[in-house]
Amino acid sequence: MKHTLGELAALLQGELKGPPDLVIEGIAPIDQATPREITFIAQKRYARRAGASLAGAFIVAPDLADLDRPLIIVAHPYLAYARVAATFAPPLKRWPGISNQACLGRELKLGRDVSIAPLVFIGERVRLGDGVTIMPGCFLGDEVQVGAGTLLYPNVTVLERCIVGERCTIHSGTVIGADGFGFVPTPAGNEKIPQLGTVVIADEVEIGANCTIDRGALGETHIGRGVKMDNLVHLAHNVTVGEHSMLVAQVGVSGSTKIGQRVILAGQVGLTGHLELGDGVQVGAQSGVTRSVPAGQDVSGSPAFPHKEWLRSMATLPKLPELHQRLKRLEKQLAELAAKLDKEPET
Amino acid sequence: MKHTLGELAALLQGELKGPPDLVIEGIAPIDQATPREITFIAQKRYARRAGASLAGAFIVAPDLADLDRPLIIVAHPYLAYARVAATFAPPLKRWPGISNQACLGRELKLGRDVSIAPLVFIGERVRLGDGVTIMPGCFLGDEVQVGAGTLLYPNVTVLERCIVGERCTIHSGTVIGADGFGFVPTPAGNEKIPQLGTVVIADEVEIGANCTIDRGALGETHIGRGVKMDNLVHLAHNVTVGEHSMLVAQVGVSGSTKIGQRVILAGQVGLTGHLELGDGVQVGAQSGVTRSVPAGQDVSGSPAFPHKEWLRSMATLPKLPELHQRLKRLEKQLAELAAKLDKEPET
Amino acid sequence: MKHTLGELAALLQGELKGPPDLVIEGIAPIDQATPREITFIAQKRYARRAGASLAGAFIVAPDLADLDRPLIIVAHPYLAYARVAATFAPPLKRWPGISNQACLGRELKLGRDVSIAPLVFIGERVRLGDGVTIMPGCFLGDEVQVGAGTLLYPNVTVLERCIVGERCTIHSGTVIGADGFGFVPTPAGNEKIPQLGTVVIADEVEIGANCTIDRGALGETHIGRGVKMDNLVHLAHNVTVGEHSMLVAQVGVSGSTKIGQRVILAGQVGLTGHLELGDGVQVGAQSGVTRSVPAGQDVSGSPAFPHKEWLRSMATLPKLPELHQRLKRLEKQLAELAAKLDKEPET
Repeated sequence: MKHTLGELAALLQGELKGPPDLVIEGIAPIDQATPREITFIAQKRYARRAGASLAGAFIVAPDLADLDRPLIIVAHPYLAYARVAATFAPPLKRWPGISNQACLGRELKLGRDVSIAPLVFIGERVRLGDGVTIMPGCFLGDEVQVGAGTLLYPNVTVLERCIVGERCTIHSGTVIGADGFGFVPTPAGNEKIPQLGTVVIADEVEIGANCTIDRGALGETHIGRGVKMDNLVHLAHNVTVGEHSMLVAQVGVSGSTKIGQRVILAGQVGLTGHLELGDGVQVGAQSGVTRSVPAGQDVSGSPAFPHKEWLRSMATLPKLPELHQRLKRLEKQLAELAAKLDKEPET
Repeated sequence: MKHTLGELAALLQGELKGPPDLVIEGIAPIDQATPREITFIAQKRYARRAGASLAGAFIVAPDLADLDRPLIIVAHPYLAYARVAATFAPPLKRWPGISNQACLGRELKLGRDVSIAPLVFIGERVRLGDGVTIMPGCFLGDEVQVGAGTLLYPNVTVLERCIVGERCTIHSGTVIGADGFGFVPTPAGNEKIPQLGTVVIADEVEIGANCTIDRGALGETHIGRGVKMDNLVHLAHNVTVGEHSMLVAQVGVSGSTKIGQRVILAGQVGLTGHLELGDGVQVGAQSGVTRSVPAGQDVSGSPAFPHKEWLRSMATLPKLPELHQRLKRLEKQLAELAAKLDKEPET
Repeated sequence: MKHTLGELAALLQGELKGPPDLVIEGIAPIDQATPREITFIAQKRYARRAGASLAGAFIVAPDLADLDRPLIIVAHPYLAYARVAATFAPPLKRWPGISNQACLGRELKLGRDVSIAPLVFIGERVRLGDGVTIMPGCFLGDEVQVGAGTLLYPNVTVLERCIVGERCTIHSGTVIGADGFGFVPTPAGNEKIPQLGTVVIADEVEIGANCTIDRGALGETHIGRGVKMDNLVHLAHNVTVGEHSMLVAQVGVSGSTKIGQRVILAGQVGLTGHLELGDGVQVGAQSGVTRSVPAGQDVSGSPAFPHKEWLRSMATLPKLPELHQRLKRLEKQLAELAAKLDKEPET
């Protein structure tokens, strides 16, 4: 795929400084780009690498407009990078139409231009919207619905009655709709609570590889519009994730917890059950949240508390043995002083 | 599916207060239930929501027997909920019989009423008990045994010679019998220790989605009767889990560790290798256990120590910078006092 | 499989003490071995168990050469165990040749003696080296390359253009080449950054079950020769892992982090993005590394700091409430002393 620099500038609605007919064949990091490729400078501190870069052109912010190289000047170079990368992305490889090596259940309702690869199993009364892509090895249980434009990568499992919205991407190995972890302890053992609910995933959600999204015990586990989840994330039954929230890899969320909009959970975070995290909450990596967090607050630690306080506590933690020693010394000194003082009046 | 309130009261061996012929079509949370549904109050503090609930009937404990609504009064409403939910659970959808789109190895021994779906691969000399269900995309290696009544959800992998007991449930994406992580460091690299053992899973075990249960290096990895494991749990080679223990999501257990009976490991807990956790031990979420724990003890933290002490330490941790300041002030004050005292005798 | 003790001594280049024609049928732990099996004593403290062991022979280090049992004396008994275990390992069960129940794309290039099982899907222009084994349920996308002697266990997913080296082992459920987690936050939501790179895995790498190795955003995610990864490990886009490093179960590595050679990351460790870990670094279990670590350093904690300091801090942590009390007492005593002193001059 090739574009001219002028085409890319137009695409980005950016200001062009340089030859509009320069041919660009790809995008690459500043230290790897060749003269046939464009690169980008998202942070001013990387500008000093421009001199040594072989890149044919640069996407930069206005504060680097005086760089003496072919430029496209835009307000947000990182976003521009994403958009240029999209123009160079190879088209998705889809199986053409419905494979006769897929196993299809009865009463399958298909939109236009659906792709079902070989080795796919689809249950009964399933509905797939226009342009849905189901790659090899996927399983869709009875009455599953998948919205228009959604892509299921290979070996995804979507169990019965779960609903996936439009323009979603589900990566390989992810399991949607397994039973929630619900048992009642009894003297004879742990008695299973049947998990009767479903999973409902709104539009434009992306879910990473090998995630597990459990169905509700009663009612649904809900993932809001535009949510992005990394790999190996676990959502327990009846969790709610608000719109545009981001869950980084290996996060685990316990049952019935409600996560607000535009929340960010960093990697390996764990949330206990029945919490509420308000809109815009950010949780630091590996934190364990055990209480609800009001909107806009940042927390860290396990158990988590406000992020700034946590930073201070963590800065002090390595000094703890030294503080212990100083405390001991003080105790000794004070005791000596007191003893001296007790004696002195007698002298 | 429909039941009368009288039928449900009989099922629960509970006391009926209300019309026995009231038709109930499902069970739902107290704030979502409709007049055709029953709900339950498992904790007295939720009783105040009963007034606003549209539920047709309530399962309650004896202390709420005076609630002026149709009631079933039982000793344990939460357990009763589990049992009523079971009566409303849709029947498991099984492939009728043995699919001719499954790949079956030689000398397969089948009990009665076995279901093998399309796209299943089964190795040689495999034995499947009465009523076993193998859903699409599963792989069973040579000489695998699966006990009567056990259910393997789609895309489960059970490698050669592993044994799964009766009435077990294995959720999608779980891998049983991958090689344990055993290498000997040498100057030339890490030399693999062949993993010759197996995995043995007793009866009535439930294992969540995308778990990994490694085979023993020599001998077996063993999961006891009635154990329940959530999603994304990792058990290393030669781990033993005692009866009725519960492992919550994303727990990891290192090699040769022995977990007692009715142990509870909360979410994201990690155990190092070669430990023993006694019966009834409970480990708090995200804890890292590095020493054996005697029966009945609760531990938390990473590294873990007794839970009550951990609670106190964690309550103090956010004050650490303040304690540091107070210590500094004390040191200064004491030095001043000492200096003053040194001078005074001279006056 | 059977070997004589003499054969095993020759294999290990060890010193034989005992009957060379003794028939050995397997290897087992010291307390489980039968007279037809050999065992090993890797640490001298286990030598006292030798008396009660039924084992037919022992692999020992020179310091146990006076044990009055049939012996093979070697410098490294644990390594010898690995090698004897290899001689008793059952041969890998491979599908003979290319199954006609696999779906093969165009322009597939095959070495000699390739095994492709049923229910495998292979895209276009894929290259598989001599002796490659692809087990059931695997997916290989377009232009994937797999080197000679490599084994893909069932239900592995390798997405388009990723490259796996020679003599590698990839365990079940692992996903190689899913999109990295890259989004640009905008007022309208999180805009996806196309992930245009690949994954390149060098020779003799072993990757556990249900891992996720994301493709580079631009450029590649790289796993060096001889790296060993346990189960449920996550590598984000553009991560580099140096030769012979070991990543224990449930480790997560964020984007663009560079891990040196012979690094050891213990279980559940998390690394933030854009770090550099030097050669030989060791990170303790559950640690969270937020800064680069120089070669040879050991760190622990979340956030991590030098391991020895961390040990001391963790030893003090449980005393924190007590230290708080002692600090309060000191403050009170000092105030009393100061008050007393203030008064005294007046007396």
